[in-house]
Amino acid sequence: MRSGGSTAALDRAALGVLTLCFACVHVIALKSQLFTRFGGSPHSAETPINYKTLYFDQKIDHFGFAEDGTFKQRYLVADKHWHQPGGPILFYTGNEGDITWFCNNTGFMWEIAEELGAMLVFAEHRYYGESLPFGQESYSDTKHLNYLTSEQALADFAVLIQNLKRTLPGAHGSPVIAVGGSYGGMLAAWFRMKYPNVVVGALASSAPIWQFPGMAPCEQFYKIVTQVFAKSGTNCQANIRRSWKAINNVSSTAPGLQWLSEEFSLCRPLKDTIDVIAFKSWLQETWVNLAMVDYPYAANFLQPLPAWPVQVVCKYLGFASNVSDGQLLHGVSQAAKVYYNYTGSTSCLNISQTATGSLGFLGWFYQACTEMVMPMCTNGFTDMFEPEEWNFQAFSDECNAMFGVRPRADWADTVYGGKDISAHSNIIFSNGELDPWSSGGVNYNITESLVCIMIPEGAHHLDLRYSNARDPPSVRAARALEVKYFQQWIKQVANTP
Amino acid sequence: MRSGGSTAALDRAALGVLTLCFACVHVIALKSQLFTRFGGSPHSAETPINYKTLYFDQKIDHFGFAEDGTFKQRYLVADKHWHQPGGPILFYTGNEGDITWFCNNTGFMWEIAEELGAMLVFAEHRYYGESLPFGQESYSDTKHLNYLTSEQALADFAVLIQNLKRTLPGAHGSPVIAVGGSYGGMLAAWFRMKYPNVVVGALASSAPIWQFPGMAPCEQFYKIVTQVFAKSGTNCQANIRRSWKAINNVSSTAPGLQWLSEEFSLCRPLKDTIDVIAFKSWLQETWVNLAMVDYPYAANFLQPLPAWPVQVVCKYLGFASNVSDGQLLHGVSQAAKVYYNYTGSTSCLNISQTATGSLGFLGWFYQACTEMVMPMCTNGFTDMFEPEEWNFQAFSDECNAMFGVRPRADWADTVYGGKDISAHSNIIFSNGELDPWSSGGVNYNITESLVCIMIPEGAHHLDLRYSNARDPPSVRAARALEVKYFQQWIKQVANTP
Repeated sequence: MRSGGSTAALDRAALGVLTLCFACVHVIALKSQLFTRFGGSPHSAETPINYKTLYFDQKIDHFGFAEDGTFKQRYLVADKHWHQPGGPILFYTGNEGDITWFCNNTGFMWEIAEELGAMLVFAEHRYYGESLPFGQESYSDTKHLNYLTSEQALADFAVLIQNLKRTLPGAHGSPVIAVGGSYGGMLAAWFRMKYPNVVVGALASSAPIWQFPGMAPCEQFYKIVTQVFAKSGTNCQANIRRSWKAINNVSSTAPGLQWLSEEFSLCRPLKDTIDVIAFKSWLQETWVNLAMVDYPYAANFLQPLPAWPVQVVCKYLGFASNVSDGQLLHGVSQAAKVYYNYTGSTSCLNISQTATGSLGFLGWFYQACTEMVMPMCTNGFTDMFEPEEWNFQAFSDECNAMFGVRPRADWADTVYGGKDISAHSNIIFSNGELDPWSSGGVNYNITESLVCIMIPEGAHHLDLRYSNARDPPSVRAARALEVKYFQQWIKQVANTP
Repeated sequence: MRSGGSTAALDRAALGVLTLCFACVHVIALKSQLFTRFGGSPHSAETPINYKTLYFDQKIDHFGFAEDGTFKQRYLVADKHWHQPGGPILFYTGNEGDITWFCNNTGFMWEIAEELGAMLVFAEHRYYGESLPFGQESYSDTKHLNYLTSEQALADFAVLIQNLKRTLPGAHGSPVIAVGGSYGGMLAAWFRMKYPNVVVGALASSAPIWQFPGMAPCEQFYKIVTQVFAKSGTNCQANIRRSWKAINNVSSTAPGLQWLSEEFSLCRPLKDTIDVIAFKSWLQETWVNLAMVDYPYAANFLQPLPAWPVQVVCKYLGFASNVSDGQLLHGVSQAAKVYYNYTGSTSCLNISQTATGSLGFLGWFYQACTEMVMPMCTNGFTDMFEPEEWNFQAFSDECNAMFGVRPRADWADTVYGGKDISAHSNIIFSNGELDPWSSGGVNYNITESLVCIMIPEGAHHLDLRYSNARDPPSVRAARALEVKYFQQWIKQVANTP
């Protein structure tokens, strides 16, 4: 199920994406901000997983009392291996999408449950999947979207856990560990920071809690994307870098536009400059997504893909610099089709979509337009993209036009501590060095109990995925260390009088 | 200036108090809950204090984006002794009242500013004093009251401090220490817990953060009141204990009611049973307030009073058990007049008022009706009052009738950690053993940096008051230790790379 529920909201979601595409023309900042989304973890068909689907009555507003209504928050529970009473609870802090997708794709939790005697709980984030505060009306306007914030989501998690501890036999003394990847990883870290009474520790995998204004250079994200392509094949990043001008050249004539549309098997032919800008944005996001899912084995995450997909893509981009624009773009098209049509079942390419429908696009756009202000930019030197500055004002205007809200650039820093988080404890920040989102991740040990684990061969939260024979030693070591910390936190609680 | 601003709001505030008086008849829980309010610190005429009054544009809603309006938050700044750049900032987390009143009555901060080279900032709590989010409309209905929560107040403080650090020359690297008493002390403690990036530590004086459901026995509060009276004069608590039945006896006839009204010089004569219940509630709160302000020297806090006022009061209540109801109540009336008419300038006693107008009654009632659910009860055995159970449902119904909101009994526990706060650091909890609010205070050291300071001879946040020749050694020692902790926290920051 896709975010936004059924028909009305879905239509709006689709419109949202198109609006954003359109917006790229005028607002380059918005493009970087909104077209680069997070992802989850891949699905493993092999491991059978069983869980109960439950619903909890959550307050729509935890931070005000005028709105006293409730909604059904979905959560999934697997207690097969749970040692009760008092066995630990691994609690997945759901991100911007259908919780069953994250549940199916966070194999790490399923694989360590038995060893830890742990119950698994996957809690859906409000406004995504089935957890819609106002049903089909949830995305209908500014007023209904008002309760879509990370603070409300964290409060949902806290209230749910406190309730489970009170009502579930054997759970009263259970230490709870938060686990999350990507935005869910940010939530896991923030959850431990804000509610250390509820969770004894957190694993924040690929969590860019430092991607906010003033915390990371805005060009870092695309620099990492570029580096991944640079090391995945000769001439690969150089040819992508050249491709933008080639696209501009070819698309400057009507026959060129038509050729380009056909070459890329686009569902809707490009018609004008605005379409071309949207096309380039889509292509840019394609390269970003490929870096994010550059896993060492075949996987179906954002798309079904082969092992080390960037290397496969780069095979089509190895030619020297003297090729014609047409030859270059033919290579680019072949490369893009690795991402969009690896299975061969895609009839045409849709430039308003780059990833799985299990992610809630519109919800994330709203969150980016409010709290999740993550500056990104390109300069064309340290990265292989056309230069685009970060323009907060333009971004804010676009958000206001789209949702009737304005982003607050400094709020995340104030409320979640920014770079000054050393007073907190028991958080693991794991980052894959192939992952563009590591640009905003915690990449050093802050204290003895706020630790960083770097995974050089890792893409976006590889450590949260099912183990695989082709896993690099670094991710195996990371997972082992993570379990060790979990055990240490559980022991700390057991030793508390 | 009294909370609620000018005419319209003031009328409503007055009505609120009357409504509550009336409500006592049916809802005994509400009486304990709402009639027992917090107070601040006393005024010292001797020490001249100088501050600038400033205003900061705060978001009305920090936790949602549909309401993007701002209001002027008042704050006071005194930088005479500030060592800039980088000198510390002592930040008073304003409670439920006019900030100038807290500023004038927190002599401790004024007295240590020079030694610490500190700037003083006193920030007004939203919905009190001049800091009204919707001006005169702020208290007009449920919708306008929606942003009166402790979380919003803490966010105000955090945003204000981050802004001062960004804009005030020399403040960028200044360590900030939160200081507060009573509800302001709860805010100081919670501020450090939730925003350790903003404040390096907190002094929470007489802060009953454990007065919430399930954390303290509900009868403890009135037990302490009773103990204070028991040790302040022979037969004192026994005679107050007997007085309730005497009031019931005397008020059972019309001439008795008239006599009682005249004996107590009431502004409005008692007319019926409902009035008598309100009268007893008022008397009960009078004894509570006297225990709260049982300071070792003459002071003008909730009322102008002599040194050790409970001892003075008890002089009128020393007779043996064989006196008549009339004699007993004459003594009670003389005792009450110590509190209400020590200066001799009060023409009549108003049973809808028990303390200074600088406190925002209506706002605090609303807060008690939402987040600040603090169960209190009396049993007539461990305390000198008529037995009254804590009845949450009745209380909730009354809140709903009055404000259109219902209290959430477990929310404070979940959001602020309840008794499980050991993951936090750098908080001093000081409590006076004469203070009824110590019933919900932190009365032991939780960790090395979450420490408790008990002041056996102290009433409500005596340590925050100006020093006085008659201060007991325990409060002198407490203040010295508090300064030592402040210096330690400041040093910790200075040593951080």
